[in-house]
Amino acid sequence: MVEPALSQLETDALRNDRFHLIQAAPVAGSIGAEARELITSSEDIFVFDQSGRKLIDGPAGMWCVNVGHRNQALADTLHDQAMSLTYSTPWYTSNAPAEKLAQILAERAPGDLNHVFLTTGGSSAVETAIRLVQFYNNVRGQPQKKLLVSRQGSYHGSTYLTASLNGRPRDHDWMDGASELVRKLTCPNPFHRPANLSVEAFEDFLVDEFRKLIAHEGAGRIAAFVAEPIQASGGVLMSPPNYLKRMRALCAENDILFIADEVVTAFGRLGHIFASEDVFGIQPDMITFAKGVTSGYFPLGGVMVSERLFAELRRSNHPNANFVHGLTYSSHPIGCAVAIRNIELLEDGLLEHAREIGPYFQEQLRTLEELPLVGEVRGAGLMAGIECVADAKAENPFDLDLTVGKRIDFHCQENGLLVRPLINMCVMSPPLTINRSQIDMMTDALRKGIEATAQDLIREKLWRPA
Amino acid sequence: MVEPALSQLETDALRNDRFHLIQAAPVAGSIGAEARELITSSEDIFVFDQSGRKLIDGPAGMWCVNVGHRNQALADTLHDQAMSLTYSTPWYTSNAPAEKLAQILAERAPGDLNHVFLTTGGSSAVETAIRLVQFYNNVRGQPQKKLLVSRQGSYHGSTYLTASLNGRPRDHDWMDGASELVRKLTCPNPFHRPANLSVEAFEDFLVDEFRKLIAHEGAGRIAAFVAEPIQASGGVLMSPPNYLKRMRALCAENDILFIADEVVTAFGRLGHIFASEDVFGIQPDMITFAKGVTSGYFPLGGVMVSERLFAELRRSNHPNANFVHGLTYSSHPIGCAVAIRNIELLEDGLLEHAREIGPYFQEQLRTLEELPLVGEVRGAGLMAGIECVADAKAENPFDLDLTVGKRIDFHCQENGLLVRPLINMCVMSPPLTINRSQIDMMTDALRKGIEATAQDLIREKLWRPA
Repeated sequence: MVEPALSQLETDALRNDRFHLIQAAPVAGSIGAEARELITSSEDIFVFDQSGRKLIDGPAGMWCVNVGHRNQALADTLHDQAMSLTYSTPWYTSNAPAEKLAQILAERAPGDLNHVFLTTGGSSAVETAIRLVQFYNNVRGQPQKKLLVSRQGSYHGSTYLTASLNGRPRDHDWMDGASELVRKLTCPNPFHRPANLSVEAFEDFLVDEFRKLIAHEGAGRIAAFVAEPIQASGGVLMSPPNYLKRMRALCAENDILFIADEVVTAFGRLGHIFASEDVFGIQPDMITFAKGVTSGYFPLGGVMVSERLFAELRRSNHPNANFVHGLTYSSHPIGCAVAIRNIELLEDGLLEHAREIGPYFQEQLRTLEELPLVGEVRGAGLMAGIECVADAKAENPFDLDLTVGKRIDFHCQENGLLVRPLINMCVMSPPLTINRSQIDMMTDALRKGIEATAQDLIREKLWRPA
Repeated sequence: MVEPALSQLETDALRNDRFHLIQAAPVAGSIGAEARELITSSEDIFVFDQSGRKLIDGPAGMWCVNVGHRNQALADTLHDQAMSLTYSTPWYTSNAPAEKLAQILAERAPGDLNHVFLTTGGSSAVETAIRLVQFYNNVRGQPQKKLLVSRQGSYHGSTYLTASLNGRPRDHDWMDGASELVRKLTCPNPFHRPANLSVEAFEDFLVDEFRKLIAHEGAGRIAAFVAEPIQASGGVLMSPPNYLKRMRALCAENDILFIADEVVTAFGRLGHIFASEDVFGIQPDMITFAKGVTSGYFPLGGVMVSERLFAELRRSNHPNANFVHGLTYSSHPIGCAVAIRNIELLEDGLLEHAREIGPYFQEQLRTLEELPLVGEVRGAGLMAGIECVADAKAENPFDLDLTVGKRIDFHCQENGLLVRPLINMCVMSPPLTINRSQIDMMTDALRKGIEATAQDLIREKLWRPA
């Protein structure tokens, strides 16, 4: 929970150990002076807090701990690779774990996505994809083809460039970005479509909006369309059934690269290594990934790139044009060794388990739709979003919305579940090792947490059931 | 070495295992089809290549493996933290290793740099610093104060924003960036100062240039000055004696934040945890760091931020303004545990060793200045740059320069030393564990490598001694 702004009298507290760490996404009033709940240890699908409470890790860390916490095989790999080849620079040398991982990924990625550039996470993966798109168009003599198209509701990263693609409420209120490079389309979430439109008509509207944008800007000015197959941090937003395929086709027709941001959906979350083709039936030009690739045991991400794109670069008249891009920890041998072992674990039963248990997870969570505070439960595989409808009756809907997720999280923790609060939503993406009885425990904790929150809101006269 | 562009007949080779990995900073002609030298294992200051050759790791990976390869204590820490608390999200929770690391860093950073935001490396550290500067000026009602001042010869990262600060030759030939936000000052390297200027006069010129820029743009438009205390990837470029202090004073006079980019110079490279105050006598407003903080065993970086800056944010009229910034792997418990153990190793004798042996390292390498191909040997602590003067007599100086570093690297490898080739320079920054006889071996290998390169250049009529 956010601490209030500090008075002059509280400066001593600033020197307290806990206050040296700046938390992710703080607010100006508490920046550098905020204490969040301390997590002390973890095991499989559980984390333990400072008071010894055992909590189901509902969001699997941050959509990442796919094989579960405290995995002996991955811990051993961290140790053993450090004691074999600790590090080699990607700028002048290469190493076997990185090359083997690249091969494994190329074999599993759809179509001709046979090459991979490795980074340290999702932001640097998307950053690399976009910088490669810019380089690509410079080299092939189309420097004016640079606009990036994303959608409201999306999340693509936390750098000046990648954050410009983000489209969640308040993302840009106080932050600068390269907004001149970005055009945003309507969020494809059918739950908030105009009341007079069917889902089919909404899909037509969305595709038509993109077509009009291309006509307006000119295909010669649009470089890429960037999209999460499911908008994860926006609240697990699913698009209409044929939306992704139709957007992909529009891109192909207009020489616009389709970048699937699979930072969340890849590596088992939907039961497959990559979801673009296996789940959504599309072959992107690039796929960005991170998180699940190492189950969060080591910061690693990357971008799969098509052979076609490289063939065009090689055919260019500038064979020596330099893509001046790379990170010290690109292709880190320890991270790559962890990713290889992690993919073995996924393919040794966990993907199958996720495909098998995903429908049960969705079915159980959907029973929460009967609660008056719940507007919709949605999702696929082992990711789900629960959207509350507090806003319908409040005087200041957004301020109330902001507290609803946090209130549910508070009550769920009393019932043994850590939730990821997201405005008026709860986002659930447990480790893939979760079993049926644990899904029941999770659903039960959510039901109790949402019911207790509804009682609080009624008592405080902030909300009443319809 | 870079492979030539592929012909149609060579497409089979594209499917070779090695070709799936895209290397850092490739050229368009070879992109996605380049095989670099495979490093297979490592031990203390040595790496081993595919043919079993044992090489001194001259650049310590990429200025990072400060405690040496294959350190048992760090490997154990990787394993043990993964088996205790594997991961906790920095967006909603905190963890003890992160909070302890923050405390350790705050105690060692100069002045009131008491807060730290943790990231996954140098690029994300500088990215965070700049985004925080932008947020800071938005919150305190100075949204027009956004210009960033850097220098020619600098390197600050590999993102759209941070790469805009870079000032090495050819950095921007084919890459896009936020150049509208950046103003570049002259590289402060005295070796290439105008022939008619003394070092003192050159220093006056540099400071005056900044003063004129401030007058021209207006202090109200300049947000920050970003500077490596020693320009590392530019070629270990040392500035004139009082340059940094005078630039720091100019910043303070004009409400311009001074960001010291210590990604290379911190954590022992110059014998201290942070070098800004201990070596250069300055207290910056922010210090960015990475690399040596974990000796490269885990991707971690960060930015130290002053209490003054946060106090101003808290006094603002926007206590709830949200700094929407954070990475999945910010405050990663495994990385933080590794950093804590690594700092213990540094403070348990290695910093002292570096301070003790640094002068011998500099002295021995400086004996190479007697070679006709060498223009200057420079550096401090355990970092040094050797600049060759091939350009003086060549028809196409830059093309020749490009090969000189690589030629020296090739010959040095025959003599048991891996060099970081950098245009016409060799950059050396061995693990801090290096001893006197190993420094002798290194100097000897460099001498032989440079002499052999000079012979090649003479034989190929590309160069002759003055």
